[in-house]
Amino acid sequence: MKKLDSTKLTEEQQEFFATHLAFLATVDKDGMPQVGPKQSMKVQDESHLTYLEKTQAHAFENIKNGSKVAVVVADKPSHTNVRVIGTAEVHDKDENGWYPVTITVEEIDE
Amino acid sequence: MKKLDSTKLTEEQQEFFATHLAFLATVDKDGMPQVGPKQSMKVQDESHLTYLEKTQAHAFENIKNGSKVAVVVADKPSHTNVRVIGTAEVHDKDENGWYPVTITVEEIDE
Repeated sequence: MKKLDSTKLTEEQQEFFATHLAFLATVDKDGMPQVGPKQSMKVQDESHLTYLEKTQAHAFENIKNGSKVAVVVADKPSHTNVRVIGTAEVHDKDENGWYPVTITVEEIDE
Repeated sequence: MKKLDSTKLTEEQQEFFATHLAFLATVDKDGMPQVGPKQSMKVQDESHLTYLEKTQAHAFENIKNGSKVAVVVADKPSHTNVRVIGTAEVHDKDENGWYPVTITVEEIDE
């Protein structure tokens, strides 16, 4: 893993996010890590990821409390992975009762 | 996701860990989350996971600094996942220069 100079996702990295299950990690106010899959995670543009907060459980609480987020997509056979560190912003509830969350990319490791 | 009363992994949960790529989340001393895949993650027994720390990067640093760990295995098609919160212990370097890490299970969510 190497911290990349860029905070913009390349086309290859965007494709990797589009084709692999993303995992989102957050931290609660006691400093406990939390991690789970986010099936709805998508690339919005080269500097933003977005997902729909459906479960509104730990990750949602932690983000509302100001936790930074870490996101990873990994491919087991090729030992490839892309990681993003960023800030998450919760938007107003949509018509399904889900909360769109936007993640601004602040660091990329590969 | 539901926090289970048990802190012992069932046979089904152990099987799930054996057959899916595990992701490990930790927290650095500034409260930043970190997450990555751990291909070597295995079930040691119903109360312990173990993996080999080969990269000795962020996760390793965070664990040595006392971070708790969160581990998840997820199956995309079936929307199933098992999560563990625990305490990690780093053992002496092995003959390959890798550090075996044992995770004591303190919470299971499913």
